[in-house]
Amino acid sequence: MTNERAGRRDPAERASIPDVVVDASGDRLVAARGIGAGAAVLAFDVGGTDIKSSLFDAEGRARGLRRTPTPAAGEDAPARLIARLQELAAELRQEHPGIDPQAVGLIVPGIVDEVAGVGVFSSNLGWRDAPIRALAEEAFGLPVAFDHDVRTASWAEHVLGGAQSYDDAVVLIIGTGIAGALLLGGRPYTAGGYAGEIGHSPIGDEPLCACGARGCLEAIASAGAIARRYEAATGRRVDGAKEVIARATAGDPVAGRVWDEALDALALSIAQLTAVIAPQAVVIGGGLSRAGGALFDELHARLVARLSFHRIPALVPAELRGNAGILGAALRAREIA
Amino acid sequence: MTNERAGRRDPAERASIPDVVVDASGDRLVAARGIGAGAAVLAFDVGGTDIKSSLFDAEGRARGLRRTPTPAAGEDAPARLIARLQELAAELRQEHPGIDPQAVGLIVPGIVDEVAGVGVFSSNLGWRDAPIRALAEEAFGLPVAFDHDVRTASWAEHVLGGAQSYDDAVVLIIGTGIAGALLLGGRPYTAGGYAGEIGHSPIGDEPLCACGARGCLEAIASAGAIARRYEAATGRRVDGAKEVIARATAGDPVAGRVWDEALDALALSIAQLTAVIAPQAVVIGGGLSRAGGALFDELHARLVARLSFHRIPALVPAELRGNAGILGAALRAREIA
Repeated sequence: MTNERAGRRDPAERASIPDVVVDASGDRLVAARGIGAGAAVLAFDVGGTDIKSSLFDAEGRARGLRRTPTPAAGEDAPARLIARLQELAAELRQEHPGIDPQAVGLIVPGIVDEVAGVGVFSSNLGWRDAPIRALAEEAFGLPVAFDHDVRTASWAEHVLGGAQSYDDAVVLIIGTGIAGALLLGGRPYTAGGYAGEIGHSPIGDEPLCACGARGCLEAIASAGAIARRYEAATGRRVDGAKEVIARATAGDPVAGRVWDEALDALALSIAQLTAVIAPQAVVIGGGLSRAGGALFDELHARLVARLSFHRIPALVPAELRGNAGILGAALRAREIA
Repeated sequence: MTNERAGRRDPAERASIPDVVVDASGDRLVAARGIGAGAAVLAFDVGGTDIKSSLFDAEGRARGLRRTPTPAAGEDAPARLIARLQELAAELRQEHPGIDPQAVGLIVPGIVDEVAGVGVFSSNLGWRDAPIRALAEEAFGLPVAFDHDVRTASWAEHVLGGAQSYDDAVVLIIGTGIAGALLLGGRPYTAGGYAGEIGHSPIGDEPLCACGARGCLEAIASAGAIARRYEAATGRRVDGAKEVIARATAGDPVAGRVWDEALDALALSIAQLTAVIAPQAVVIGGGLSRAGGALFDELHARLVARLSFHRIPALVPAELRGNAGILGAALRAREIA
């Protein structure tokens, strides 16, 4: 439970910095921003691979932020997940006995009906119509705010990060897949959990996507797809999309083609969003967003080239990095604490 | 000013039927539904070719509904339009001296900022940043509700017609072009007038669209494009998209290809809307919607074939036909009367 950054800062600044945890894999979690003063809350960001958990104190600081493996999918996955969250909560409360959480924020991937409190479907977590909120409320004896991971992360980007200035914004998280969320008129727009599936918006007739549909954006333009398509074309293993982009920049023609197709696909999809939703900004996060100008400048140029009277949105990097989800979960919990 | 239908109905029913006008071109306007009791209002639906005008009485009946030519575009187009609307209003009031309108509803095509009351751009009407609402309020001495034609028509479909049961719906009007409007969470979503340009949402790299962009939906799938593409391929003149569809059904291979490409393009665009916005319904109006099952059944089958976990929207015919705009303009005027 060391805080590697605190020792290099002055005491006043140090007070605002949460304790930061090195997880089992050795990855150091980036210090999360605070969420401001309010009730203490527990927050969980459950992914297909790992769970981020933290106890937010009354000053809004993330205490004991850590990343631990998600229980395996399979029978009783919802019950086993909730049991694991209870263990994590017990550890957090033991480490911080003076902090008394008043509510829980819990976010999960897949199709989520946040009104009913139901995990409608998640292939990674292995459930269908799972009454997650009811299970969690029974386990914790606290009110539970339950929501979709990327929609919640995008809400955090709206309140605390890159989308702060915009009422109408689309947040795209481009990593292994592509997830999206809509903030329209200053509020999340969810359509019962079905909206924002921009990664599974078809842009053509191919390739076949893992979801069963044809031509999904994420099958061409996710960081995962970029690496996969390069490997399939060359038989050479690469260290993710960033290596493909580096090779493209260095003149590798196959890498250049794969990256160019990904950029065209993203530009086409953002052009469609521009015509239909006309967001003021498209906020882009996830691993691919670290490509910086190679991504943002290229996308802007392609948007301008292919549209006409449309209002071109600002393309804005997400600011909260990997912590948008856990911060959003804490914000959601605050709303009901 | 004859009412051709009234003579064939009983007196009680007759009382609820508005007077219907045969316009200069001999087209008989479909009788408009009523909008219910409320203030009397003037309503104008201004298109690139003609203006529909009517005086709605306190029972909500459209009186003197007629279609007359729009003044030519060019210098002073806004002022000449307003002068023409004043003439039409004077005629309506002279014919119906007992009806005292309390407000005006005025809708126009193009890019419309309904908050500022400005016609931002219209190629057909020939204006840019025209302060239409202020000009109209000065001319009429009445409050003027100013809005976009298709958004207003879609609002009327929401209140009175095919979208009544849905909070989240997309209305597509497929005629000479393709216009769209979004109703999200039960309210029009406009993004300052830029949203809903589904006809100018790109679905590929070609053809070049009249708007200057590439691959716009309306350049392939509007009724106008279907007729134009068939004529270009065969050198044969046709009586609109309906003749191309009839020829396709009869086995004409060129007509079959043009219609098939239009259906594929529409299905792709609706699939994108489904993934991103997940509307409960897509309400389709305009000339092409009269193709009935040839359109609706084909689109549904193609949507099901190309999507996976997505929630397929109901595909619903618009109900108000050509009168959605004028009814919507009257509804808007009622809101401020």
